[in-house]
Amino acid sequence: MNNDSSARIATELGEWAATAAPGTRLPSTRALVARYGAGPVTVQKALRTLAARGLVESRPGVGTFVRAAVRTARPHDYGWQTAALGSPPHRLPGTSTALRTFPNDVIALHSGYPDRELLPERLVRAAFTRAARGDAAVNRPPAAGLPELQSWFAGELGAATPAGLTPPSPADVVVFPGSQSGLSTAFRALVGAGRPLLVESPTYWGALLAAGLTGVRLVPVPSGPDGPDPAELARAFRLTGARAFYAQPNYANPTGAQWSPDLAGRVLDTVRDHGAFLIEDDWARDFGIDTDPVPLAVRDDGGHVVHLRSLTKSVAPAVRIAAITARGPARERILADARAEAMYVSGMLQAVALDVVTQPAWRTHLRGLRRQLAARRDLLVAALHEHAPAARVEAVPRGGLNLWVRLPDTTDVPRLVRDCEDAGVIVAPGTEWFPAEPAGAYLRLNYSGPNPGAFPDGARALGEALARQDRA
Amino acid sequence: MNNDSSARIATELGEWAATAAPGTRLPSTRALVARYGAGPVTVQKALRTLAARGLVESRPGVGTFVRAAVRTARPHDYGWQTAALGSPPHRLPGTSTALRTFPNDVIALHSGYPDRELLPERLVRAAFTRAARGDAAVNRPPAAGLPELQSWFAGELGAATPAGLTPPSPADVVVFPGSQSGLSTAFRALVGAGRPLLVESPTYWGALLAAGLTGVRLVPVPSGPDGPDPAELARAFRLTGARAFYAQPNYANPTGAQWSPDLAGRVLDTVRDHGAFLIEDDWARDFGIDTDPVPLAVRDDGGHVVHLRSLTKSVAPAVRIAAITARGPARERILADARAEAMYVSGMLQAVALDVVTQPAWRTHLRGLRRQLAARRDLLVAALHEHAPAARVEAVPRGGLNLWVRLPDTTDVPRLVRDCEDAGVIVAPGTEWFPAEPAGAYLRLNYSGPNPGAFPDGARALGEALARQDRA
Repeated sequence: MNNDSSARIATELGEWAATAAPGTRLPSTRALVARYGAGPVTVQKALRTLAARGLVESRPGVGTFVRAAVRTARPHDYGWQTAALGSPPHRLPGTSTALRTFPNDVIALHSGYPDRELLPERLVRAAFTRAARGDAAVNRPPAAGLPELQSWFAGELGAATPAGLTPPSPADVVVFPGSQSGLSTAFRALVGAGRPLLVESPTYWGALLAAGLTGVRLVPVPSGPDGPDPAELARAFRLTGARAFYAQPNYANPTGAQWSPDLAGRVLDTVRDHGAFLIEDDWARDFGIDTDPVPLAVRDDGGHVVHLRSLTKSVAPAVRIAAITARGPARERILADARAEAMYVSGMLQAVALDVVTQPAWRTHLRGLRRQLAARRDLLVAALHEHAPAARVEAVPRGGLNLWVRLPDTTDVPRLVRDCEDAGVIVAPGTEWFPAEPAGAYLRLNYSGPNPGAFPDGARALGEALARQDRA
Repeated sequence: MNNDSSARIATELGEWAATAAPGTRLPSTRALVARYGAGPVTVQKALRTLAARGLVESRPGVGTFVRAAVRTARPHDYGWQTAALGSPPHRLPGTSTALRTFPNDVIALHSGYPDRELLPERLVRAAFTRAARGDAAVNRPPAAGLPELQSWFAGELGAATPAGLTPPSPADVVVFPGSQSGLSTAFRALVGAGRPLLVESPTYWGALLAAGLTGVRLVPVPSGPDGPDPAELARAFRLTGARAFYAQPNYANPTGAQWSPDLAGRVLDTVRDHGAFLIEDDWARDFGIDTDPVPLAVRDDGGHVVHLRSLTKSVAPAVRIAAITARGPARERILADARAEAMYVSGMLQAVALDVVTQPAWRTHLRGLRRQLAARRDLLVAALHEHAPAARVEAVPRGGLNLWVRLPDTTDVPRLVRDCEDAGVIVAPGTEWFPAEPAGAYLRLNYSGPNPGAFPDGARALGEALARQDRA
């Protein structure tokens, strides 16, 4: 069966059906097979697609008929819902630029997800094919996750745990359907609505979104290319009574900061002094370039670090799997929330994730990915340097997927973003990463999108848009 | 590569490594290949499994070595977390009996999930294999869902919409990673913490769990084999000012009630009179036996009915896909919550779900399922009648997966459940389905579990346990 043919037939027949009178009978499958030169299975698939769209209906033994597309056309008044819903308790930010999709012909420097060419596509397809034959396709896994996958996540931290500290056990791991669910649960279970959560500023917009959903009170701690300011962190803990700090110690999104061992130690000491949690978002574990990221979690066995790791970005968007590793009552609180929120995570996705990351070819893939990320990062840095000198990369990140670009203070960032988009270049305004007013004019440029060969053209368009503002 | 051999080698080597001194070098791959008569790929897979479990570590170019299993053994004190976490804002119920797993040799009448033999296993495996070759394995779908799957869900409601009413459009559909996520989002987005939500009593325990998580205030409305009492429903709306009612109008879990068209009309009128939402949990859409379930949602185009449908139970536990169809601002509120909670749902699971339900064999499967459910239901009803006459089925359900069994008022239900378990029969106490004190002594017996041939033995054990209480 050919999916493309079936889609083409569905489109053509659908256009015809949309203009035909309701009740008109479609040609027989045999006649359609002859007309389109396709097999009967392909034609039937096209008809099912049209039926699913409500355009035609099949009467068994009689034939297929055009349906009335919209049976009434009066506009509806849902105004009563306004009173029923009331004002939302928390305003959620809108869709981030990082999630928007654009036509293929733009130069895309905005996305939060690596391009398909950077994914271990063959490994993922093979893993799904294998898992389709196994028990994961029909069984229900335990709420905390597949035991073998829990072991793998625990083993990843265990392998880096220094002597003298107890590595986490597989039972400390809770599997989530993606890191966003992990963030929502961590904020709900460890902080709770109305209570303070310290965050770096700027920080990951998805964490700001989860914070909005869960109603925690954000307390920004200034952070830059070297990580958060430890004195400000201590002051924020002291003044707010917060018991949790959310951070990305390795290749922070968006700044790219990797904490020095000294800073990591100081932050951990501060967190311990305040009887608090560090919610470590280890999002870029697979995206080291010049350095190897070591999670802070391996330096703590007192239950202070709650570690979140996702496989979605490095394995595939379809393999929506993340895990939180936490010890003590925190782990219980997190599991109870995850169970109530989503019951359990598809065992199929868990089996596929485990299959991919335990193949020898996964290591090979990661080595190749590192080289590609290095080349892409360096290409974009060089292109900006040459074509958009007013856009300054304050620190070249040693890993991750993004450049954090400082613009002249007078830049009209929304206008710049629009001007770039008009020129076919999509960039993300830095404002989306700030929990409060932005500390300056920034763009986040992602170097893991499609077609890195166009980076120089993208930088040129950005440079020209910046120059136009300068002249205005 | 042979997965069973690899698992066997991992087990044997793991037992050896657990007793070996840390640092002991493992035999070479070549030696292990010879010892176990397995291929090198199989042996390497076993070694990776052991490494993932933290039992051995590989030093490239040197060899594989036994790791210290637990490097420190001191007990940890996580007491500081008690202060950091505080009291939980809402007490979540524990794991329901319906989610517990037991050895294969018990008679399982407790589960909430149909047995493997009732699933379209071949369709699911074929769909995963097909999807593994397609774009869904590598692409990221829109936050609201794959457009084709949105169309299918909308089309299912549209096909049953009477003339004169506007069917929902695909854009009204939001896809979720399972119905539990849908319930959590609906309660958060349409009701909110501290506000009242009317529920049938008894009702689905997963909804009670989601209510606990989201902090909505439960208001029970008495319900029985015919559905909720409409006068009590109207009174509850009036007295509490609630703007939402959660219910299962077709084959309610646990009572099996299917609302009459007259009751459905009265409930809809009451909901409209109070400017409220009916959150319709259409969980058993694929489980009609004597009747065809028609969702209430098709009788409303004013945005009052928010319709939740899951495919997890009828397609496969691995295909964790559900959808909410809602119109107007309610749909916006639901999408914003879903996006903040989980960002998007694996496109692979969405593609597989769509593939399964659009195959001609899906309809054939549902017809066979109907016959099997009828036979299983009737067998369990007859077995109870013969062997446990004190356990009364007040109404034989016309669909769904459960019998709601009334016990003599004096029954010690927890003791009965324990006695049955001791006799190898797992039953679920009715208490788990009540949002307040239970209105009587009940059991929920699921007739979709494994091995229906053992239903008479199960009923006999239940009858004997009841008789023992009678004599005591």
